[in-house]
Amino acid sequence: MSLNSVIKYLSQQEAIDVDKQLFDECGFSVDQLMELAGLSVATAVFKSYPLTNLANNKVLVCCGPGNNGGDGLVAARHLRLFGFDPQIVYPKPGRSDLFQRLVKQCQQFDIRFVDLSTSFQDYPLIIDAIFGFSYKPPLRSEYRQLLQLMKEASDNGNSKLISVDIPSGWNVETGPPTDGETPVLNPECLISLTAPKLCASQFNGRFHWLGGRFVPPTIIKKYEINIPSYPDADQCLLLFSKNN
Amino acid sequence: MSLNSVIKYLSQQEAIDVDKQLFDECGFSVDQLMELAGLSVATAVFKSYPLTNLANNKVLVCCGPGNNGGDGLVAARHLRLFGFDPQIVYPKPGRSDLFQRLVKQCQQFDIRFVDLSTSFQDYPLIIDAIFGFSYKPPLRSEYRQLLQLMKEASDNGNSKLISVDIPSGWNVETGPPTDGETPVLNPECLISLTAPKLCASQFNGRFHWLGGRFVPPTIIKKYEINIPSYPDADQCLLLFSKNN
Repeated sequence: MSLNSVIKYLSQQEAIDVDKQLFDECGFSVDQLMELAGLSVATAVFKSYPLTNLANNKVLVCCGPGNNGGDGLVAARHLRLFGFDPQIVYPKPGRSDLFQRLVKQCQQFDIRFVDLSTSFQDYPLIIDAIFGFSYKPPLRSEYRQLLQLMKEASDNGNSKLISVDIPSGWNVETGPPTDGETPVLNPECLISLTAPKLCASQFNGRFHWLGGRFVPPTIIKKYEINIPSYPDADQCLLLFSKNN
Repeated sequence: MSLNSVIKYLSQQEAIDVDKQLFDECGFSVDQLMELAGLSVATAVFKSYPLTNLANNKVLVCCGPGNNGGDGLVAARHLRLFGFDPQIVYPKPGRSDLFQRLVKQCQQFDIRFVDLSTSFQDYPLIIDAIFGFSYKPPLRSEYRQLLQLMKEASDNGNSKLISVDIPSGWNVETGPPTDGETPVLNPECLISLTAPKLCASQFNGRFHWLGGRFVPPTIIKKYEINIPSYPDADQCLLLFSKNN
């Protein structure tokens, strides 16, 4: 199934502008949209990977320092409510009050924070919430090992890798990194938020979802975001899926 | 179907304490929880009243001055995304930045604000988001007419009345008002948030939903909130439904 041909892919600058307009002109708060984005990520994971098909219910949620990491923290909390056992890698926690509260909320749900010494391949699912649409190479060296661990666990077939908005390390417009330094992630599942970014046209995994069902008609019109209709009251939309 | 017998009904003080603890101890913001609460309300409405069964897609969302009204504003926005045509009555808008932003968001979705002169019975659905768990009688006189208009449109069978958390004007613990002054609402649908309040045991409508899927285990344990499990990744749970 593919709905992919009809949709618009945003450039990095368009993605930045859409984000800014959602806050400045539409009156949304980061709290609100991050909650909906993270919920859509958790929902897409739940639908893509039924618990009964997994070796265990552990999910490793790898969170970066910015809003993509915040989406991951929110997704972890909802995944806990959906019956998963999420654990979080968060090497460089965001400093703002919002990020501190998101961590506190996870702790209230008994979600453990673990470090890079955890055995990545023991998690059937790994969520990549490191970098989003504002990422610009080169990769900061402190994230090289984390990306490498995610890549190894996914390339060796032990873990399914799920990227939030952008596969981390990818150029937002041109796709997989070619610098020979940045580990090249190959997620099986991509959850684009608001609208896919240009690099998503090179995504070659099994499931491509759209989440972040909150874009008002003013923005849809201005940026010609011709996304397909979400079904029913769903918070995510399957753009395409492939058999293994 | 009924799951009602197993659940705990909160007293007014317990509801106030749970709310306070969600913010003070669990680190949630009002923005976050109102977004999830409003989304669960919109989802329950979507599931109870399929668009194809309605005379038209208009919904009148009646919002009070506090957080119950805020839930209504959020629900209106999501209902718009789900294909409804919500219009809002908001006689006394909340003054805080949050409420002003919620109004702005609705305007971005071309949702109209109307006054009490609108013909209530032309709306197949009316949402009662006037007062929530912190309501204490007597009813302020400025809301008497609004409740009366909602009551008439619903009692004469033209509109289905849906109450958010508490039927407005009801005593949170003892149920329907008996003062002879307060219009007695008889909603067909009740969406309890977090956990039902004591008055919900007297709800005699068709659909009783639970929404607000965000309560951490610490609170569930402390207040013995033995709510049934939500299905799948759903944001609302049908506690019971009756045939007409």
